[in-house]
Amino acid sequence: MKTEFNFPIRVYYEDTDAGGVVYYANYLKFYERARSEWLNHLKVNQTELLENNIAFVVTRAEVDYIKPARLNDQLEVRSRIIKLGASTVVFEQVLFLKQNEKLEILNQAIIKVASLKLDTFSPCRIPAKVKEEFQRVS
Amino acid sequence: MKTEFNFPIRVYYEDTDAGGVVYYANYLKFYERARSEWLNHLKVNQTELLENNIAFVVTRAEVDYIKPARLNDQLEVRSRIIKLGASTVVFEQVLFLKQNEKLEILNQAIIKVASLKLDTFSPCRIPAKVKEEFQRVS
Amino acid sequence: MKTEFNFPIRVYYEDTDAGGVVYYANYLKFYERARSEWLNHLKVNQTELLENNIAFVVTRAEVDYIKPARLNDQLEVRSRIIKLGASTVVFEQVLFLKQNEKLEILNQAIIKVASLKLDTFSPCRIPAKVKEEFQRVS
Amino acid sequence: MKTEFNFPIRVYYEDTDAGGVVYYANYLKFYERARSEWLNHLKVNQTELLENNIAFVVTRAEVDYIKPARLNDQLEVRSRIIKLGASTVVFEQVLFLKQNEKLEILNQAIIKVASLKLDTFSPCRIPAKVKEEFQRVS
Repeated sequence: MKTEFNFPIRVYYEDTDAGGVVYYANYLKFYERARSEWLNHLKVNQTELLENNIAFVVTRAEVDYIKPARLNDQLEVRSRIIKLGASTVVFEQVLFLKQNEKLEILNQAIIKVASLKLDTFSPCRIPAKVKEEFQRVS
Repeated sequence: MKTEFNFPIRVYYEDTDAGGVVYYANYLKFYERARSEWLNHLKVNQTELLENNIAFVVTRAEVDYIKPARLNDQLEVRSRIIKLGASTVVFEQVLFLKQNEKLEILNQAIIKVASLKLDTFSPCRIPAKVKEEFQRVS
Repeated sequence: MKTEFNFPIRVYYEDTDAGGVVYYANYLKFYERARSEWLNHLKVNQTELLENNIAFVVTRAEVDYIKPARLNDQLEVRSRIIKLGASTVVFEQVLFLKQNEKLEILNQAIIKVASLKLDTFSPCRIPAKVKEEFQRVS
Repeated sequence: MKTEFNFPIRVYYEDTDAGGVVYYANYLKFYERARSEWLNHLKVNQTELLENNIAFVVTRAEVDYIKPARLNDQLEVRSRIIKLGASTVVFEQVLFLKQNEKLEILNQAIIKVASLKLDTFSPCRIPAKVKEEFQRVS
């Protein structure tokens, strides 16, 4: 059974553009914050990984823009692992607008992440301790 | 025959992250700059469109991260229209590293854009004058 | 007596640059988030203000970079109003690193904000209801 | 006699916010691009400096927001060195709107930059070769 990680996001001026809505690249920032906080929650230390020459790097992103988010909106990202390989992990992440206790879907993404050696950007196995945590929530 | 629009990008500190490479969301900024300059080149005025309640909004993005771009890299975005509908247009955009007169592919994207009424975010036909320009380069 | 508003910030990849620390422009994002959440807390609705042709716009910023913030740092912004005029308000905002229940100062700023008519960018009195709230916390 | 370095900037959607103008933090991005291109022009290699544990880090910024820049504006940053010390250099940078061959001032900044050892963030002398270049244009 899959475990979901829920993470709240508030929309600030920095996220919006002259169209009055969230700029299309910034949804990827929201999704990355959610993945990073999930790693924090799983006690995976990204700074420590960087120091050990390992980085989790996005290799493919598919994003569907369903409805726009707007200034001051209270959002929620729901993240799940949908595929776990030796050196890659695929996340499904969905962004909801939270209003009056109701959730409305605004955006969704499939994000493929690879474990890489930072100096050469060549793939490497996901560190065992991290893999274990990913398996626990997949 | 398809016309390609080429646009140069320089990588600055603002584009990079603590991994030492361009932050994954920022490639979408590069692609948007290239599309905007193409519109400028085609004499399509986005500010005027906004004032007339029309915006070109991305509805789907697929991005493949092949190799990372780094601080101070000189890049080039090559953009083509690969599909043109009544209210949508699909771009293929490829990002190259330019070094010693050689081009190395770093990143590529398929970006679907819809013509929308800004107040309701409902689809509308691409304005005729703009459509004509898109047809000329498709 | 001055009331302080405290707001937590987590540092994500998007905030950092290739120097391994938070990019210098992004501290201004942190300060703006803190001011916006303070406005939310005071029940001042910025979207409503925009619709009424009023925006709070920064007219001067002085930022002192004391120590850098780093990836995944848990920070806190402390904001105070230090001067309140008819159409302007001056904030003092200080950014702390929060570690083991201790606070270390990293950055501080003096931010002058003006109440402007959005269409002409000419100064206007701070709306009475908002002014009242500012007075209450100054 | 002071040498000025002029650098062009185009405003894209990514730079703007829901107020319809350039987001206040993003002017610092424009100024940093101009300083970086000046360093490139002077054959100072920031990536090489980073690899040698040296970074030029902003320690103080004063920004005056005079008039806002807007979507698709063609801007120009004019940069000068106004003070040069052993480990610090102070830039004056002015942002102009370029329209019909006329320049209108929009924004200006005083930016103090320090030469730091990247690992300890302690001040260090500006490398001799770089200092020489700075002196030549101060």
